[in-house]
Amino acid sequence: MARPIITLTTDFGLTDGFVSSMKGVIATIAPEANVVDVTHDVPPQDVRYGAYALGSTYRYFPADAIHVAVIDPGVGTRRLPIAVRTGHGTFVCPDNGLLSYAIADTGARVEREPFALGRVPLPTKWLAYQLTKDQYWLHPLSSTFHGRDIFAPTAAHLANGKPLHDLGIGVIDLTAFALPEPREAPGTVIGQVIHIDRFGNLITNLRQAHLPAAPLCVQVAGQVIDGLSKTYQDSADMVALIGSGGTLEIAFPNANAASALGVTMGDAVRVSTAG
Amino acid sequence: MARPIITLTTDFGLTDGFVSSMKGVIATIAPEANVVDVTHDVPPQDVRYGAYALGSTYRYFPADAIHVAVIDPGVGTRRLPIAVRTGHGTFVCPDNGLLSYAIADTGARVEREPFALGRVPLPTKWLAYQLTKDQYWLHPLSSTFHGRDIFAPTAAHLANGKPLHDLGIGVIDLTAFALPEPREAPGTVIGQVIHIDRFGNLITNLRQAHLPAAPLCVQVAGQVIDGLSKTYQDSADMVALIGSGGTLEIAFPNANAASALGVTMGDAVRVSTAG
Amino acid sequence: MARPIITLTTDFGLTDGFVSSMKGVIATIAPEANVVDVTHDVPPQDVRYGAYALGSTYRYFPADAIHVAVIDPGVGTRRLPIAVRTGHGTFVCPDNGLLSYAIADTGARVEREPFALGRVPLPTKWLAYQLTKDQYWLHPLSSTFHGRDIFAPTAAHLANGKPLHDLGIGVIDLTAFALPEPREAPGTVIGQVIHIDRFGNLITNLRQAHLPAAPLCVQVAGQVIDGLSKTYQDSADMVALIGSGGTLEIAFPNANAASALGVTMGDAVRVSTAG
Repeated sequence: MARPIITLTTDFGLTDGFVSSMKGVIATIAPEANVVDVTHDVPPQDVRYGAYALGSTYRYFPADAIHVAVIDPGVGTRRLPIAVRTGHGTFVCPDNGLLSYAIADTGARVEREPFALGRVPLPTKWLAYQLTKDQYWLHPLSSTFHGRDIFAPTAAHLANGKPLHDLGIGVIDLTAFALPEPREAPGTVIGQVIHIDRFGNLITNLRQAHLPAAPLCVQVAGQVIDGLSKTYQDSADMVALIGSGGTLEIAFPNANAASALGVTMGDAVRVSTAG
Repeated sequence: MARPIITLTTDFGLTDGFVSSMKGVIATIAPEANVVDVTHDVPPQDVRYGAYALGSTYRYFPADAIHVAVIDPGVGTRRLPIAVRTGHGTFVCPDNGLLSYAIADTGARVEREPFALGRVPLPTKWLAYQLTKDQYWLHPLSSTFHGRDIFAPTAAHLANGKPLHDLGIGVIDLTAFALPEPREAPGTVIGQVIHIDRFGNLITNLRQAHLPAAPLCVQVAGQVIDGLSKTYQDSADMVALIGSGGTLEIAFPNANAASALGVTMGDAVRVSTAG
Repeated sequence: MARPIITLTTDFGLTDGFVSSMKGVIATIAPEANVVDVTHDVPPQDVRYGAYALGSTYRYFPADAIHVAVIDPGVGTRRLPIAVRTGHGTFVCPDNGLLSYAIADTGARVEREPFALGRVPLPTKWLAYQLTKDQYWLHPLSSTFHGRDIFAPTAAHLANGKPLHDLGIGVIDLTAFALPEPREAPGTVIGQVIHIDRFGNLITNLRQAHLPAAPLCVQVAGQVIDGLSKTYQDSADMVALIGSGGTLEIAFPNANAASALGVTMGDAVRVSTAG
């Protein structure tokens, strides 16, 4: 049988030993687990960035992988620790919006202003449990490092085959961000910037299927880009292309598009048929 | 049988291929080893920082884990390469103070000014060997990279089951830093800052058991903090709390407490019963 | 049987989830593979830096390791994706010069100005294939992330034992940089700086065997260094020593030699018998 996979997504950085403490806990409980880092450089407490990192990678792992995510500004407060089994992966994290993209992938929607938090009913066929059984946690339980004391050991027990329902009590809804929705009109679609990566590339929510007929014209923050590029090398100017996540990106080769344009999360990107 | 664990703690960074050369050497000798990074971002040549990183994480790994630590400003000079089996973990490193916290955990003390180096007798039940058998090293032996040429292959041979005493000659004392000791008086305890993490949080040597009766008042560098918080979110001001390592920490949410207060290693932190 | 090793060398950084997507793809296809990071902090699009990172580490891995390297400024353009089996390791990468050092290790030479790209015949006993069989790739194939969509799955299939010749069509020459050659004269040798690491150390192409008789005098950018040091600690001034890669290095303890001297890639380093 293949080694169970546990991925880790945190804002702990790698300078101090926090992440390795989590790996030590996992190795102690589930020595056969294959632990894979997604990223530990999520900007501190930036749940939205962490949600995107998780949401843009989990589908590339096997469906039985266990994904631990700990961007947890509310550690030690009322937010719930949860474990959620979905159609593609099991997630172990605080219930604070980290699963927003995985939830949106099922078609569920939070009806609020973009990036505001709300509650959504548990998607069909998902299982979700609030982690309450402290026999599966590390003791003494700290109030500041649930990554090590709750989430890591929970993931390790799941990797060992522990059933999800043994870990706590069922929950029927989850916390998620509202994600902005493209607005379409004849010959035009208006999308939004949903992620800015560390290179300053602007990732939007516009898929190929959203786009009107070519020739295309892309407008963002007063900048006009004619046509889609196929690669980052097509131009020394700002380019628009369908990125590796399958959505429209705006990139400024060898420079930072976000700072050059003054664009922030949620800003509009208009794509029209040119002419 | 579970895969043997080898952890790595260095100041090599991850930009160049130094760490991966060590991993290649380990994979060649001990292909089943499970190599886990503690950190490679110890500030260059900062043995004390490395000792803390190691000392704050090793207990979370299984007792049979092998810990390689290479913060080694004296590489190629007289400092000894050693392998040390303790009650919880085997350490492979230069004998330059990197084991100070593991040694202190046994109750052993260096009687000198704080953070000065001294020698301590080998703790009871520990085994320590100077690495002298060069058949277990990589050749040609460099004079600048013993992490790759001595420490990594030694750890790999240990992971393969090689007995410690085959690797060299026994030693009966080890190098360690003097760690500052809290001073207690009725209703007051004075501890010291023993680590400043990359966020500027001040980690002290004061455990819960050291603290006088509540209500508490914490004083550091002229700053007065009333009461202990349970989490980092309790306040926008500076907070004091028992951190994930089990000792008192002073943190400045969303800011850097060390630079805001001008605090450095060894500075005093006074905790008194308020009123 | 030992787990197959796949190493990764990229310029993707670890902040976003790009590297973990590659690891997810590998874990899905080849769950037993042991994935080891060489570095993901190659300066963006710096093929030469990546070639050096790869060239200075691959020999420390087992000969059957598979090395994926993706510094790929031409992603989505005409440069070919290749898989190359050598006497020590199999490489999966774009054919853009990333194998320059591995090729030079066989004695092959590109006759052009230093660091200019050229073509070299496939070294004896090497096998090289252009990757053309898209049934071994991820679909939908992006035009911007062949690391995830072509190179990672190809390496995973190779780790599973897929023969190289199933992956594409044979090629008989490869792209490589011209590497500068030391010039010797009686009592003197002139080498070149071939790498500047993140600490600003200057790594040259001069091996011990190139050096004239001691006592030595090293000259670089107007700086004169008398004699070779054995370690970085021998002096507070600039030092010359044989580094861990086996060639002459110039280092400025606790400072950056490259910026202090204004040295760049390809600059001359003269070593003479003193007196």
